[in-house]
Amino acid sequence: MPYFDAASTAPLHPVAREALLASLDEGWADPARLYREGRRARLLLDAAREAAAEAVGCRPDELVFTPSGTQAVHTGVAGALAARRRAGRRLLHSAVEHSSVLHAAEVHEAAGGTRVELPVDRTGRVAAGEVAAALGTDTALVCLQSANHEVGTEQPVDEVAERCREAGVPLLVDAAQSLPWGPVPGPWSLLAASAHKWGGPPGVGLLVVRKGTRFAPQGPADERESGRSPGFENLPAIVAAAASLRALRADPGTDGEAARLRLLVDRIRTRVPELVPDVEVVGDPVRRLPHLVTFSCFYVDGETLLHELDRAGFSVSSGSSCTSSTLTPSHVLRAMGVLSEGNVRISLPYGTAEAEVERFLEVLPRVVRSVRERLGVPAAGGEEVPAAAGGAARTAPAAPAAEPAEAAGLVVDALGKRCPVPVIELAKVIGEVPVGRTVTVLSDDEAARQDIPAWCTMRDQEYVGERAAERGTAYVVRRRA
Amino acid sequence: MPYFDAASTAPLHPVAREALLASLDEGWADPARLYREGRRARLLLDAAREAAAEAVGCRPDELVFTPSGTQAVHTGVAGALAARRRAGRRLLHSAVEHSSVLHAAEVHEAAGGTRVELPVDRTGRVAAGEVAAALGTDTALVCLQSANHEVGTEQPVDEVAERCREAGVPLLVDAAQSLPWGPVPGPWSLLAASAHKWGGPPGVGLLVVRKGTRFAPQGPADERESGRSPGFENLPAIVAAAASLRALRADPGTDGEAARLRLLVDRIRTRVPELVPDVEVVGDPVRRLPHLVTFSCFYVDGETLLHELDRAGFSVSSGSSCTSSTLTPSHVLRAMGVLSEGNVRISLPYGTAEAEVERFLEVLPRVVRSVRERLGVPAAGGEEVPAAAGGAARTAPAAPAAEPAEAAGLVVDALGKRCPVPVIELAKVIGEVPVGRTVTVLSDDEAARQDIPAWCTMRDQEYVGERAAERGTAYVVRRRA
Repeated sequence: MPYFDAASTAPLHPVAREALLASLDEGWADPARLYREGRRARLLLDAAREAAAEAVGCRPDELVFTPSGTQAVHTGVAGALAARRRAGRRLLHSAVEHSSVLHAAEVHEAAGGTRVELPVDRTGRVAAGEVAAALGTDTALVCLQSANHEVGTEQPVDEVAERCREAGVPLLVDAAQSLPWGPVPGPWSLLAASAHKWGGPPGVGLLVVRKGTRFAPQGPADERESGRSPGFENLPAIVAAAASLRALRADPGTDGEAARLRLLVDRIRTRVPELVPDVEVVGDPVRRLPHLVTFSCFYVDGETLLHELDRAGFSVSSGSSCTSSTLTPSHVLRAMGVLSEGNVRISLPYGTAEAEVERFLEVLPRVVRSVRERLGVPAAGGEEVPAAAGGAARTAPAAPAAEPAEAAGLVVDALGKRCPVPVIELAKVIGEVPVGRTVTVLSDDEAARQDIPAWCTMRDQEYVGERAAERGTAYVVRRRA
Repeated sequence: MPYFDAASTAPLHPVAREALLASLDEGWADPARLYREGRRARLLLDAAREAAAEAVGCRPDELVFTPSGTQAVHTGVAGALAARRRAGRRLLHSAVEHSSVLHAAEVHEAAGGTRVELPVDRTGRVAAGEVAAALGTDTALVCLQSANHEVGTEQPVDEVAERCREAGVPLLVDAAQSLPWGPVPGPWSLLAASAHKWGGPPGVGLLVVRKGTRFAPQGPADERESGRSPGFENLPAIVAAAASLRALRADPGTDGEAARLRLLVDRIRTRVPELVPDVEVVGDPVRRLPHLVTFSCFYVDGETLLHELDRAGFSVSSGSSCTSSTLTPSHVLRAMGVLSEGNVRISLPYGTAEAEVERFLEVLPRVVRSVRERLGVPAAGGEEVPAAAGGAARTAPAAPAAEPAEAAGLVVDALGKRCPVPVIELAKVIGEVPVGRTVTVLSDDEAARQDIPAWCTMRDQEYVGERAAERGTAYVVRRRA
């Protein structure tokens, strides 16, 4: 069964499995003890640290093992901010960071610090110049991912690191997604990563604090891992994590595999819009992770789409609002200003067969079509498909709730309807709107704010704007042709 | 090779190993995902939670998995204190808690809270009445271990929990050492434990917060584990931890094994003082963990003793100052007011053979004797053994540094000498002191404060007291006979 969600977690690397088994026998004791079992465990821990440091490109005494990438980020952000308290309390981070960075930033803000969110372009990339311009004199820390976890876009980490170095501000790089593919270049100060993203076991993160970087660990003291990661070391998993990372680096095939997956992703990027109408492929087509691609499908409920793909044998992920229990669209897609509905993220694990990708391209159009049909979506050409039961919102010419400006226009009441229904209802009525006149969609779904303008762009209709309505928000669209 | 340090970490239970292997295959995916691999992982996680909850004696939704017992304690203490902030900011804990509790308490204190350390008796036990008396009206939380990790003494958790319940104050129980042997009784509110103490893999702790207990997780938000333990779940290890705990509980032999180890420990408690002169066996002889015993040997450097036992094939641990890089005696032994030097902790793993214990009893007297001989220690009868090179401190009658009161007495200058040298020097000169006269030991070693009075008790000499000297501390001893 094709598993296309390596960005969530990669299947265990065979070397990791072997090393885990061996170190269950050899490395079960407490590495802090002086007897033979303890000394043996200590040797394994030291060797793992050396291997991981070499793969990252740092000194072994700069690297500690944490219980997860998330905890590496939390510890790194808190420790760097605390050590820089006198320099300032401003934290800069991109708008598309992983939630672990955002949550650490929220804690900083709640404690009286300030945070500045750096915008990204439509591909999801920050501009190094904008980071440099925002640095100011009181910035304590900058956080920037090496590559985005939802759309794969690579960030200009090298250049940003250089600018930060010049300004004397530390840069923390969340390298969770890119470390499997190579070390992070540039004079960064801190780095966080997660073993299960590269085929290591869960339970292991890396936190690197380069020499010369001020760092003050927060929280209760503990003598393990240089006082930077409390608790008994998860040694078998640490050994497995380091062994698999070293194996990836040592494997002369890694670069070849990256190139091969890059071509498979190129093929998906090209073929999906050809095979499926009303799709937006997002993220940078070139400066990106080799194995990851994301696209969004209009008029599709993401959760249903994922479910149907799963039934067809494909395990994929989504940043769509439609699959999240919080009902808010992915902050990454929102910051990029791209379509969020019907979002699908494909991240190919090491060794993905070309035939699996081809089969996915075969299955996808049929799956999307069937989901759309069930929702009564207008077909790509603009003709309408009859609405299925349950999905339709009420539409009314000049409904009493509408305000004077729209009195002459059509109002679609999609209140209480979740993504993708508001856009579907808009698509259904646009044919009834006289050219040059407007239609107003009333919606209280957060995704509509993003998806209605995106729909207008794709369908070449004019997005007039939004304003608060008595309930929810009124989105106004003018028919162009 | 006999491994007698189960209290540091227990060898992996065969069931844990099996479950770990199986869940590397079945449970590697993200349990938060909706595709089949994710759903399978979710089922394993749910089953592990149910099994662990049953073994602890709580509801599955009261239990979360953390990356370690230490983190379970840190999270539990911080979350309970934060939620009780309005009730008060006083934290009560015993003087013999695990360092993870003490370090969490230090953070509370640094943030403006208060902490009250509850004293223990000479066996290491708190009195439930004293806890109740200390509760007051502004106590936010009480922390009490179920059994001590260094000396094995069981605490009156059941009774303390009852008193706390009556007062409406939550009790957090650190059950790391006792959970392998059975659930913790009583109406406690929070519980922390660690899987590698019961034969589970490292990387897994448990935090239980009983329904009705106010709890406010601190630190960055995260949706995993009910928001109480951030980061990707360490699922294979969690499954292995739960399976091995369930196996221990289901095994009809567990109680028998506890009884068998209890007898072996009884034998060590009885025989060691018979076989080795000048030894103090500490902790409660009856209300204790089944598998753990600690004793201290006068005139012995703990690190050397552990090293020699390791050479003789025995892996044991120590709370002695002499093995620690910090050079301060174990806070547990200090709080109990017992001898700290030459401290040895024996904690027998499941299945320890009687013959191994017998061999230990055979080897120990010889090892202690050889260490003492090398240090030039007076033999048990009181006769002196000639001092070996390097170990001797200067002794001088009426040294100029001595103060008037001791001008007529002997002064032993042990400044700069570490445990056990100050006590050895005292033992060497006591024969030269006229009966009724004093000898003063000058020492800057923290352990002397504990070990010189302990030596006086054992040798029936009068401990007059201590006072600050020009350098270090002057300990005054009067010869009785």
